[in-house]
Amino acid sequence: MPTAPPDGAPLRVLVVGADAAGMSAAHQALRTARRTGRRIEVAVLEAGEDTSYSACGIPYVASGEVADTEALVVRTAVEHRAAGIDLRFGARVTHLDLERRLAQVAGGSAVEFDEVVVATGANPVVPPWAHVDGVAVEGVHHAKTLRDADTWSRRFASGGRVAVVGGGYIGVEMAEAAVRRGLHVTLVTRSRVLSTFAPEISAVVVEGLRAAGVEVLEHSTVEGLEVEDGAVRALRLGEGTVAADHVVVALGVTPATDLLAHTGLLSPGGGLRPDERGQVVPGVWAAGDCCEVRSRTGFWTYAPLGTHAAKAGRVVGENVAGGDLRFAGMVGSAITRFAPGTVHLEIARTGILDAQAAADPSLDPVVVVTDGTTASGYMPEAAPITLRVSADRTTRRLLSVEIVGGPGAGKRVDTAAAVLWYDGTVDDLAWMDLSYAPPVATAWEVLQIAARRVAERIDRAARA
Amino acid sequence: MPTAPPDGAPLRVLVVGADAAGMSAAHQALRTARRTGRRIEVAVLEAGEDTSYSACGIPYVASGEVADTEALVVRTAVEHRAAGIDLRFGARVTHLDLERRLAQVAGGSAVEFDEVVVATGANPVVPPWAHVDGVAVEGVHHAKTLRDADTWSRRFASGGRVAVVGGGYIGVEMAEAAVRRGLHVTLVTRSRVLSTFAPEISAVVVEGLRAAGVEVLEHSTVEGLEVEDGAVRALRLGEGTVAADHVVVALGVTPATDLLAHTGLLSPGGGLRPDERGQVVPGVWAAGDCCEVRSRTGFWTYAPLGTHAAKAGRVVGENVAGGDLRFAGMVGSAITRFAPGTVHLEIARTGILDAQAAADPSLDPVVVVTDGTTASGYMPEAAPITLRVSADRTTRRLLSVEIVGGPGAGKRVDTAAAVLWYDGTVDDLAWMDLSYAPPVATAWEVLQIAARRVAERIDRAARA
Repeated sequence: MPTAPPDGAPLRVLVVGADAAGMSAAHQALRTARRTGRRIEVAVLEAGEDTSYSACGIPYVASGEVADTEALVVRTAVEHRAAGIDLRFGARVTHLDLERRLAQVAGGSAVEFDEVVVATGANPVVPPWAHVDGVAVEGVHHAKTLRDADTWSRRFASGGRVAVVGGGYIGVEMAEAAVRRGLHVTLVTRSRVLSTFAPEISAVVVEGLRAAGVEVLEHSTVEGLEVEDGAVRALRLGEGTVAADHVVVALGVTPATDLLAHTGLLSPGGGLRPDERGQVVPGVWAAGDCCEVRSRTGFWTYAPLGTHAAKAGRVVGENVAGGDLRFAGMVGSAITRFAPGTVHLEIARTGILDAQAAADPSLDPVVVVTDGTTASGYMPEAAPITLRVSADRTTRRLLSVEIVGGPGAGKRVDTAAAVLWYDGTVDDLAWMDLSYAPPVATAWEVLQIAARRVAERIDRAARA
Repeated sequence: MPTAPPDGAPLRVLVVGADAAGMSAAHQALRTARRTGRRIEVAVLEAGEDTSYSACGIPYVASGEVADTEALVVRTAVEHRAAGIDLRFGARVTHLDLERRLAQVAGGSAVEFDEVVVATGANPVVPPWAHVDGVAVEGVHHAKTLRDADTWSRRFASGGRVAVVGGGYIGVEMAEAAVRRGLHVTLVTRSRVLSTFAPEISAVVVEGLRAAGVEVLEHSTVEGLEVEDGAVRALRLGEGTVAADHVVVALGVTPATDLLAHTGLLSPGGGLRPDERGQVVPGVWAAGDCCEVRSRTGFWTYAPLGTHAAKAGRVVGENVAGGDLRFAGMVGSAITRFAPGTVHLEIARTGILDAQAAADPSLDPVVVVTDGTTASGYMPEAAPITLRVSADRTTRRLLSVEIVGGPGAGKRVDTAAAVLWYDGTVDDLAWMDLSYAPPVATAWEVLQIAARRVAERIDRAARA
């Protein structure tokens, strides 16, 4: 396979997908090429008509807090093109021929490239019950595109009963949006709410959902819909029905990698696994939600988050244009919020999942759950916070931190993420020099109290 | 000097000072002694009648947010005594005889000890103009003790004009308290407001103070008072007068170490410099605001903060009772808030001071100031945030981070503090895996954007 264009000809970089990862790569490639003096042409093929938008912002359009989907667009097509990017909409790549360096576009045309950046993102999981006789049921929809944002904003503004199917981040955020619109909401999930969190944390979230009026049905499976005149009227569960004029399908996403299905490059989960420079094989790069993400400790996880997409896109852009930048790996940080007025919960985690820890025979996790306050107890700002900290008994290495609590609780997880970044111990976290003032913390920062309790549990067990 | 009591006799530990550091030491010593099986007696001599209170909470009593000074008391004398501590109030130690192991108490008595923990705290700086003919002027007062909290609460509730002298943390917090009481406030400082911060950060704070109605007079020196009937009526400055019914003296504190003035153990600034186990010399331990604090990079700084006091007290208590715990050093973290309703600024810093960096010939600081938002720009929660990040050009090591911004801005400094803890680089901070959701962050966390800009400035200069 060629790794460089003929002498004098510009390097033709083809980016497939025009969202965060793809456009970060495209812009960075041009910036880096200017620096390295490399001649380069960047084309971007996008199946839809959206580019560089914040999918994470969709619930806040649905809620009415953000008036216009335009606000979610970080950079417009006009801006991309003004930067010198050949951005083409409505160009769905159906097949990548890596031998001949050709991208087949739906409709028949093909685009040649020297280097390809796969940034095709993810597809929402569509359950079989979302269609009846092959036709999408009116009122049943996911929350993935800018058009979805408009749809939900319009539908939620029209009143009615909402069922959210799925208890992940988007499910919780869409439940908030519907509550903010004053709608009755039922959240249905086949497992627990926020099941990547420990049960103790999920339980606090469920309590918050219920306090805000959300009906929560955990361990419930949707078996079908009740439909009238093509529109949904209810969810059919194993144990009854849930009346619903709107059904938000929030069952997660899967890597959009059909165009590489023939290559053998995909993981069992269908994702790409680029190396730290963002390369899958020579000439093929990948970034964003079509990829799994390697943790710093070596686990591959499917973690379709904008933070990884932006970083990985930048890494790929730099390297495809002759630079040298490494994606340093993730530690597993994520945050969401459920705060529809009367309730305010920030929910965050970092570190490996319990299941990953359990699968590693070298680890012996010691876990402590600690309750505290986000500010000094005597301050009006003091809100409850619950932290779950896990560390390895032998090495005392921090393994994970999960947090749920009031305003200011969530972003505390970043401090733990920094400790994980350095492979630090629970003692480091317990003793490091964190900031304190009564309106924003306790004198012993609650994150440090939580860490210290783990350290003390390890110590006590060692003495016993 | 003896280092252990005669066989069979309990170790007599004398703690001088009953606030955070001293009482942490006392309780930890008893806990550790139970664990190590050591026989120990702990006595605490306190000059006043306050114990284990949050001095940081005083402004919030003054403002009326905290109704009662009792709320600031973390643990009462009754609780301390119930834990087995011989706590004695009104016992001011005037002299420590380290040879004979005797503490001289004002009034004539003396207390013997085997080990002494100096936790005498700090004294507020009293300027000469606060007294006229040797008599304290009514209405002129500092904000240090629980009684001060009551005084300011009562005075602020009574109306009138307030002058705050001193632009440090307490000065800014007391200004907030007075504004919350609806009073007219003038803040006078001989240098800049929050002068441990860079001018760019101070300027944002001054803007916030003024937006809240505080008159700010920087680079102004108080030359005297105008007094009527023994009560203050105005401050006399070089360039005019400031009418004031209440004058808050917030000029900082100095180590309360008179009792050791004869020993040669004090630093030029009058503070103690205990080793990492909290020991000054054999048999003499120290913790809290009577000490300087060693940074992880080796600087001694006078940083009288509750966070260090609590940690150092615990370390001393552990070691005096036969354990082994090390104070791992500070990195320079601090936070405050100015948020009287209409304005909300969180102000935080970590890392070495510019002056310390300038004094180290091995460092070549590269500094960038970055403006951003605390949440995604399209969210109603998005508030401005300004960050000033400094890193060393050669090693790329993070040197300091200063932050000022809206709700959620301040505690971001903890993430930078964790990077400093590990002697990490600005690249680490730029690329680590921090959490993102639109209501609480931007997709590229603003702290990371700020760090990346420093990295890019270093890179560009290296290429030039």
